This record gives sequence, C-alpha cells and structure tokens, in this order.
Amino acid sequence: MSSRLHAIYQVRSDAKSIEARAQAIAVEQSVEMPLSAIADDFVRREIVGRVEAVAEKEQGLFEVRISLAAETVGSDPGQLINMLFGNTSLHDDVTLHDVVLPGELIKCFGGPHHGLQGLRRRVGAPARALTCSALKPQGLPAARLAELALRFAQGGVDYIKDDHGLADQAYSPFRERVEAVAAALRAAPAGGRAVRYVPSLAGDLDTMRGQIAAAGDAGVDTVMIAPMIAGLSNFHRLVREHPAVAFLAHPTMAGAARIAPPFLLGTLFRLLGADAVVFPNYGGRFGYSPDTCRALARAALNERDGLRPSVPVPAGGMTTDRVPEMLDFYGADVMLLIGGALLDARERLTEATAAFVAKVHDFKYG
Amino acid sequence: MSSRLHAIYQVRSDAKSIEARAQAIAVEQSVEMPLSAIADDFVRREIVGRVEAVAEKEQGLFEVRISLAAETVGSDPGQLINMLFGNTSLHDDVTLHDVVLPGELIKCFGGPHHGLQGLRRRVGAPARALTCSALKPQGLPAARLAELALRFAQGGVDYIKDDHGLADQAYSPFRERVEAVAAALRAAPAGGRAVRYVPSLAGDLDTMRGQIAAAGDAGVDTVMIAPMIAGLSNFHRLVREHPAVAFLAHPTMAGAARIAPPFLLGTLFRLLGADAVVFPNYGGRFGYSPDTCRALARAALNERDGLRPSVPVPAGGMTTDRVPEMLDFYGADVMLLIGGALLDARERLTEATAAFVAKVHDFKYG
Repeated sequence: MSSRLHAIYQVRSDAKSIEARAQAIAVEQSVEMPLSAIADDFVRREIVGRVEAVAEKEQGLFEVRISLAAETVGSDPGQLINMLFGNTSLHDDVTLHDVVLPGELIKCFGGPHHGLQGLRRRVGAPARALTCSALKPQGLPAARLAELALRFAQGGVDYIKDDHGLADQAYSPFRERVEAVAAALRAAPAGGRAVRYVPSLAGDLDTMRGQIAAAGDAGVDTVMIAPMIAGLSNFHRLVREHPAVAFLAHPTMAGAARIAPPFLLGTLFRLLGADAVVFPNYGGRFGYSPDTCRALARAALNERDGLRPSVPVPAGGMTTDRVPEMLDFYGADVMLLIGGALLDARERLTEATAAFVAKVHDFKYG
Repeated sequence: MSSRLHAIYQVRSDAKSIEARAQAIAVEQSVEMPLSAIADDFVRREIVGRVEAVAEKEQGLFEVRISLAAETVGSDPGQLINMLFGNTSLHDDVTLHDVVLPGELIKCFGGPHHGLQGLRRRVGAPARALTCSALKPQGLPAARLAELALRFAQGGVDYIKDDHGLADQAYSPFRERVEAVAAALRAAPAGGRAVRYVPSLAGDLDTMRGQIAAAGDAGVDTVMIAPMIAGLSNFHRLVREHPAVAFLAHPTMAGAARIAPPFLLGTLFRLLGADAVVFPNYGGRFGYSPDTCRALARAALNERDGLRPSVPVPAGGMTTDRVPEMLDFYGADVMLLIGGALLDARERLTEATAAFVAKVHDFKYG
C-alpha cells in the first residue's frame, strides 16, 4: 500500500448530511467523478480519497479527516495545495484545518535552510528574541528609504525588511533600492552590531531570481517573499536554488479563515523553506485570536519532522509598549516586528527604535 | 496627476464605523502605516489610497470604492493583486468585489491572444456553443487516458481537457500522457472533425514552460492552467511567452466569496490572457448563484477595453439533460463542459458523448 497524507477539514453541516458531505469532499479532492464510473482497481483502492474519521466539534461543526495517496502529489508544492484544497476552496462551508504528511513528502520539501538558529547567527544574537522593522511608505525614492534604514540600524534593530508593498516600482526600483540600503547599512555606525536588510521579492520566477542575484551583488543574503502570490511551487524552487539565502514569508493574499493560519503559515510555509513567517498578531489590525497565534508559533517552531524551526514574526500594528506582553506570550524564540509605530516618531526614529530594541534586550523572561 | 485604479470592496460593518473602516482599508492597501508618520508630499497626495465613495448596499453591508495609484502596481500581476487585496484578504469581513483599471494597465496586461473566436476557429465551429469533456480519474496510466480521449473524440466533442488533478504523477507523467493522447487523437476517425486536447500544466514556471514545449512537440497548442496556484505573474508570463498557445484557466484555489468570482475569474483571468475560464455552474456541486454565473460570463465576454473575449466554461457536475437550459441561459458564446457524467456511461462513453454533442449542435436559440 502506498503512503497517504491526511487532510483535516472543518465542515459546517447538519448531522444527517455530514457523512455524505465528507464523502463528497473525499471524491472532489481526488478523482472528481462518480465512483460508479471508475472500473480500475488501483484507482478505487488507492487514489480515491478516503473518509478516515468524522467527529462533531460543536453543534453544526464537524472535523473530517480524509486521506489521499501521496502519489497524487508527486513532489510539487502547487499540486499539494491543489490536492488538499483546490476545488474545495470554492465551498464556503469548509476550511482546511490541518494536514499530516508522510515522511517522504516532508523530506522531499525539506523545510528551512537556516531557520531560527540561522537567523540568530546572522545578527549575532544567540538566545534573545530578534527585532525587526519595516521600510515604508512606498512612494519614497530609494535614497529616502536608505536614510530610514540607516536610522533603524543606528537604533540597533536586527532586521530591516521592506514593506510588502515595495516591489519594483518606478519610484524605487528593486536594484536601486537594494544597493542604496545596503550601502547605507555598510556605512552605519551601529556600534558594531550586525544588521540585515530584507528586501521584498515580487514578480514571476525569473524576475525574483534576478532580484535575489541583485541582492547578492549588494551583499544581501536575506529576502522576503509572499508565497501565496509567488505560487508555492515557485517559492519552493527559489528556496532550493538558493541554499545560502534566508527567506522571510509574508502572509499577503493568504486569505482569512479558509485555510487555518497555523497550518498555512506555520506548517506549510515552514515545510517549503520559510526561515521566518510574518503573521498578524492578536490585538493588532487583524482578527487572529491569541489561540491562533499561539498555535501558529508552535507549528513554526515545534521539533517534529526533523525540520529546522522557522521564526514566528508577529506583526500588524504592534507598538513598543506591547513588547513585554508579547515576549511573555511567545518567549524568546520570536522576532518582534514594529514598523509604522516607529516611523511615527519621525525625526526621533533612531531613539524610538533604540527604545524598542532595549525593551527586547532587557526583558527578563519569567 | 498619475492615473489610478479603483477597487470596490464590500464590507460588513455598522453604519457608525464604516467611514473609519474604509479609511483603514485605504491605508492598509497602500502605505500601511500611520498617515501622521508620512511627511512626503508626493506620497500623501498620490500614493496613499483614497476613499472615493461609501454606499450602504443593504443593512450592515457597504460598498466602498478606494482608488490607488497605478504606479504602485507597475506592470506586475502579482503586485496588482497584492495592492488590491493582499493584507485585506486577512480580514474576513471584506470581499474584493470589482476593480476599474486605467487603460494603460489594461493595455500592459493585454488579455487573451485567441479568446472566443480563436477557440472557435481551432475546432471549426464559427458560431455554435463549444463542447468539452475531461480526462479522469487520476491514477489511470497514460494509455488508458488516451483510450478515453479517443472515445470522446469519436463522440464528436470539441475540446478534451485533463482533469485539474492530473499533474506530472508517476502513474501518468505529463510528457507520456500528452504524447499518448495526441497520438490517439491523430488516429481518431472523428468524422473529419477537429478536436483539441488540453493538458493541465503544473509546477513552477520553468516546469510549466517545459510542459508547454512537450505539448508543442506533440502538436498540442491549447493548455490548461490554475492561475491561483501558478501565481498570477507566472501565468501572465507564460501567456506572453507563448502567443500561439491558447490558455484555459481553472478556478482551483480561487477560494469562495472573498474575491467576487465575476471579477477574479471573469475580468482578471481574462485580462491576464485566459482564452477560456472554467467556473462552477449554478445548480452543480458548488454554490455559485445564477446571478454570479451570469455576471462572470458577461465579464469574460463583454466588449469593453478592446480585449478579446474569453470563453465562459460553466462546469462542476453538469449533465447532458441540462444542455438546453444552459444554452438558454448562456447563449452560444459558451463552452459546455461535461466530465464525470459522460464517464459514468463507461462502455457507452462514445454514445453518451455523441448525445451531448448532438444536443449542443441541434439546439435552437430562442
């Protein structure tokens, strides 16, 4: 018997329809045709999705576990998400909650090349929580973004990422921006501290390859990518082609509530090679709950599967006064990202950054 | 003043919060930072998203129109969807309903190379509705799929597409399948009728390029792609690189209810070059309403913008007895796709296909 992956869905349904609904999902996500039309024994036995379990979670909400043959996926991440949720994503009463993958598929995808330890090593911070801020707004020329980067660096932040809206626009072309920011950081009197610029990739696979090369020319070895826009197959290909580069994954276009964030951002982005995953923290501009954030961070960090841990990066409207609460919640295996709230300090940006950094460095874990 | 795109969102909100909510979306989808932190005049004037209109559609549901500078998109389809819906996709009370693009962006993306007239010409059917069926289930070897294709061809169908679950699996590798099906169709005694095989692309950009080349080697000039899995930038790049190839777009992973299907599948997939768009018809396995399907078909076909029309392909559990009703509903500018229901005829597949085809060919439009 071939190995199987187990997809766990949450389905809104009444109790009398759930068995048929579960069976319909199993068929939709595998052969997508009437079983009566299938004569082939191998297909009936192995390829047709199997309902493995159905359990009522609460009134009208069921957890459905369906197994699929690993052979249907091959080794392509795009085909993985197609098999797990492709057509079923068109139903609004089903969410993809979690997935258990066979070892061969995990090995094939491989996870982060650097992960938590690698991102710590890059900035010489072996144990404490990492810090990050963001270059924005888009519309500024490269030189102005480079000035901001310099001031973040002088404030002592570890990572300075592009806003995910920065692409290859005329007002700040990718190569020009990377060269300007990298030059500013090389010149930064940052007290000998290491600091890494993380430019945001955009465009098709070839364009992103060119951007990674341009970043490399400027001495930049850490980049940000939006896997749901790039396409999972292209994201994974870039990771495999560039083992020396660290990848920060951004959640843009990851939707809400259709694929559980702990699985999509925590487990799957990590599995495909994200060294760190940005996600909307609870109590910010987005609606993730503390439970969702905790589960996501665990999925990114846990030790299962022999994969390197991916750094959770809670973000989205965070402020310096929340640092102690966040470090209490996440512990030290985290990268705290504060963007707009630091930029709001304007001419006191360096000082505001330094205050954020000090709060992270000085925190006493309970 | 630079040209702007207008994004139209539907937002669930109470009346007293909607102005602030609209403003928050405008900021999230542009500069993503406090406006108080922005000193630059150009950014404040052009780059910050503008709330252009707010209107209550029904109790608790508002239509919000926000304009964004075209310069923020440049010419990249991935960046287009990032600007339109990236972070806002993480809020579950907002859907992206429609978008009005400036002419320069429409010209830059360019739409289908072939479209309705091209797909009609390929199969020598200048005026009537087109017919299509699907090769499945996955798990069958290439030779068995080729036998099915032959019988569909003998039944007189115009297009034979892969099920979107067929990728490059070990049991039916892409190249082997394309060669087997193409050979079977060349040998088909299909009464001199033209018939086109439409294999399904999967994988990263380079892999899909290789698949298009393999299809071309076998004389196949029409392919299927899943834009939401491939990534919109990669989809568009393939279209531009292969002007002689026609592209059928599949809705897998297009989600439900977060981006309005008429915009995503009808307008955007067409704009990026889909010659035909498959979508779940009302009354089938999926929950699209007749209104949604009608709006989607119109968006794919309408004459605005000087783009070639894209063929609507309603599908998802259709049967031959629904042909008259569907042709009444959609008219002749349509491709009807029946897959599983024909395969369910098993040894009478050719006859079932011929009955479907006859119903389409003989239909008298009212």
